[in-house]
Amino acid sequence: MNHNLLVGQSGGPTAVINGSLYGIVSEGIENNSINKVIGMINGIEGFLNGSTMEMEPLKDSGELERIRTTPGSFLGSCRYKLPEDLGDPVYPKLFKKMEEYEIGYFFYIGGNDSMDTVSKLSRYAASVGNDIRIIGVPKTIDNDLVETDHTPGFGSAAKYVASTVREIAIDAFVYDNKKSVTIVEIMGRHAGWLTAASVLARKFEGDNPVLIYLPEAAFDPDAFIEIVREKMESVSNLVVCISEGINDGNGTFICELASDVGVDNFGHKMLTGSGKYLENLIKERLDVKVRSIELNVCQRCSSACLSAADLNEAVESGRFAVNAALSGETGKMISFLRTDASPYHLEFGTVDVSIVCNKEKPVPKEWIISDGSDIGHDFVLYAAPLIQGSVDVPTQDGLPYFAYRR
Amino acid sequence: MNHNLLVGQSGGPTAVINGSLYGIVSEGIENNSINKVIGMINGIEGFLNGSTMEMEPLKDSGELERIRTTPGSFLGSCRYKLPEDLGDPVYPKLFKKMEEYEIGYFFYIGGNDSMDTVSKLSRYAASVGNDIRIIGVPKTIDNDLVETDHTPGFGSAAKYVASTVREIAIDAFVYDNKKSVTIVEIMGRHAGWLTAASVLARKFEGDNPVLIYLPEAAFDPDAFIEIVREKMESVSNLVVCISEGINDGNGTFICELASDVGVDNFGHKMLTGSGKYLENLIKERLDVKVRSIELNVCQRCSSACLSAADLNEAVESGRFAVNAALSGETGKMISFLRTDASPYHLEFGTVDVSIVCNKEKPVPKEWIISDGSDIGHDFVLYAAPLIQGSVDVPTQDGLPYFAYRR
Repeated sequence: MNHNLLVGQSGGPTAVINGSLYGIVSEGIENNSINKVIGMINGIEGFLNGSTMEMEPLKDSGELERIRTTPGSFLGSCRYKLPEDLGDPVYPKLFKKMEEYEIGYFFYIGGNDSMDTVSKLSRYAASVGNDIRIIGVPKTIDNDLVETDHTPGFGSAAKYVASTVREIAIDAFVYDNKKSVTIVEIMGRHAGWLTAASVLARKFEGDNPVLIYLPEAAFDPDAFIEIVREKMESVSNLVVCISEGINDGNGTFICELASDVGVDNFGHKMLTGSGKYLENLIKERLDVKVRSIELNVCQRCSSACLSAADLNEAVESGRFAVNAALSGETGKMISFLRTDASPYHLEFGTVDVSIVCNKEKPVPKEWIISDGSDIGHDFVLYAAPLIQGSVDVPTQDGLPYFAYRR
Repeated sequence: MNHNLLVGQSGGPTAVINGSLYGIVSEGIENNSINKVIGMINGIEGFLNGSTMEMEPLKDSGELERIRTTPGSFLGSCRYKLPEDLGDPVYPKLFKKMEEYEIGYFFYIGGNDSMDTVSKLSRYAASVGNDIRIIGVPKTIDNDLVETDHTPGFGSAAKYVASTVREIAIDAFVYDNKKSVTIVEIMGRHAGWLTAASVLARKFEGDNPVLIYLPEAAFDPDAFIEIVREKMESVSNLVVCISEGINDGNGTFICELASDVGVDNFGHKMLTGSGKYLENLIKERLDVKVRSIELNVCQRCSSACLSAADLNEAVESGRFAVNAALSGETGKMISFLRTDASPYHLEFGTVDVSIVCNKEKPVPKEWIISDGSDIGHDFVLYAAPLIQGSVDVPTQDGLPYFAYRR
């Protein structure tokens, strides 16, 4: 069996996807059973074109330590979807390339679509009797992977959302002698985990964000206007948090009421503008100052709100993955198991990747309260441990000092 | 003469406007010549309606210390413009109210419009022989006040912009096997200081943001498309930073090419969408993936990127203001004097507020290079000292622990 380790990143970046990379690479370098640690540049797509780099020199230069606290995908990413048909010639081509590089251990850090890649590769390997160990390491700010308590990347994104919404509420409050509504649009097409995290911004009962809407509950624009009108009787400066993917419950996104949408190459609808739509609706129906704010990519790439809990778990899940592969596991995703809720305690396990991929875990219906306009305390108990602790990101000339490929 | 101190905040918030408040209040509490320290709630407008609070109890409760690191205006703000006619009855009404509160010292923390208030109040006081000392303390993320090297609030906003643009560049780079353009729209209607700060994000010559456009230089959409085309030959994932107020040099904002605009109650045009306009222009003219990101209010209310240099100067300028008033000054704004560039050294002074108000300081023409598409090194030397050092914001349950009025 071969003794080199291959690792890649795929899908959208997070603040700690490089933490998982750091864990895999560090463990790979330290472990005597592994020879070279090789990174694929731009995921499986780049690897097919021979784009790789050796990782050990980064340790000697100090760059590996900086990778740990650098947001985004250090190795670059791709959104390449492997063919459903395992008879496609791309599979033997890929495994021939792995043989050239003497790869015995393959790690892919990613979300749903990346786990689909892990599933197909491991099924192909099994079908041809290849003994390469293929492991998926989860990441996604969306927190929508099944068979795991949560995913790395969510904690830091949740901390960014909660901190930022708390600050936006302060900004809205500055003119508290004038009534206003601020709509904050948060990432999440189908799962509202990240939007739900805005509830953590509340300092007391009734504090902003007063209203929170997720894609998991049907959204009714008329009921929305009525509840905004009602809440404004007691709160001058209302902050409302919504998922980009809020919808009418019958598959129509609220933003589609306003504009046309495109489709990306995984068939996902490309959304924009639910916040803008509601801003205009309020302007039209209520006599009140209104603005909408899209939190945008900072949710997934800000290093300023890194959660120490999240980053540590990302690193440890990477180390665990290497050891799982060495002990013979393949075709698995690393799963996060909350063995104790209070005090919070986490352990890692493995789960068959084929039951994870192409599924989405919604926020439980019972955590969504007040006719779909608020989030209950069970979510707070769930999410609070994931945003604890801050991370000292190295700085240079007053700015974060990040790792980057030269 | 009366011995109470009155302090208010006005205009848009910044990350350190409460630092100035902290400086004034702390100095006022500590100084034996001053009796009570009174805050006006929602500026001069709230004060006219009798909205005030005593500040000393906040010290005993520990809240004052938290105010120091809380973004936004703790006392609330207003955009109330005093009448030009000093014969208007609002003036005697205001001064009668101040007499009731036994105010001897009046401090107003704000930008251009707030200095206009300070100027009018001090001219009225002089005209009626009132000996109240009236002092303006500068703040604005826009950095556009004249007669001062810079303004508190700018350093932290600049640090936020530079850090965030560096992170957005990482996010853009993740798919470096696909060409893309990312437009980042930064606050600034007429002055481009904050947009210029994006140049600090560069790690090396030619790094992102590759193009930077300020309102001070005429913007030509055709020339823009050509330079984007040219730059994309060497940079796959281009990041372009623009001020919201980029214009054609003849008073037409670029965003006006796309949509209608409103006017606020100071007669300022209310802008939106220069980034969106350029996104659509690139989509139309170049065959490339493009997105636009509006940094929005986080630029002025994020505590995550507080500059220690900026916050300390804000606090000290507040303390200096109290001592200036005690030593007999009135009708002045506190000015920031850079007495040494390297190593950076700052001193405070005072300047006649009537020569400050209603003026705007643009970025010097000679700091804008490459036909208006880039920022020169002189700006870097100017801005770098203002973003140095980070601030430990107190946390509670994993989130920033802010002061707020109950």
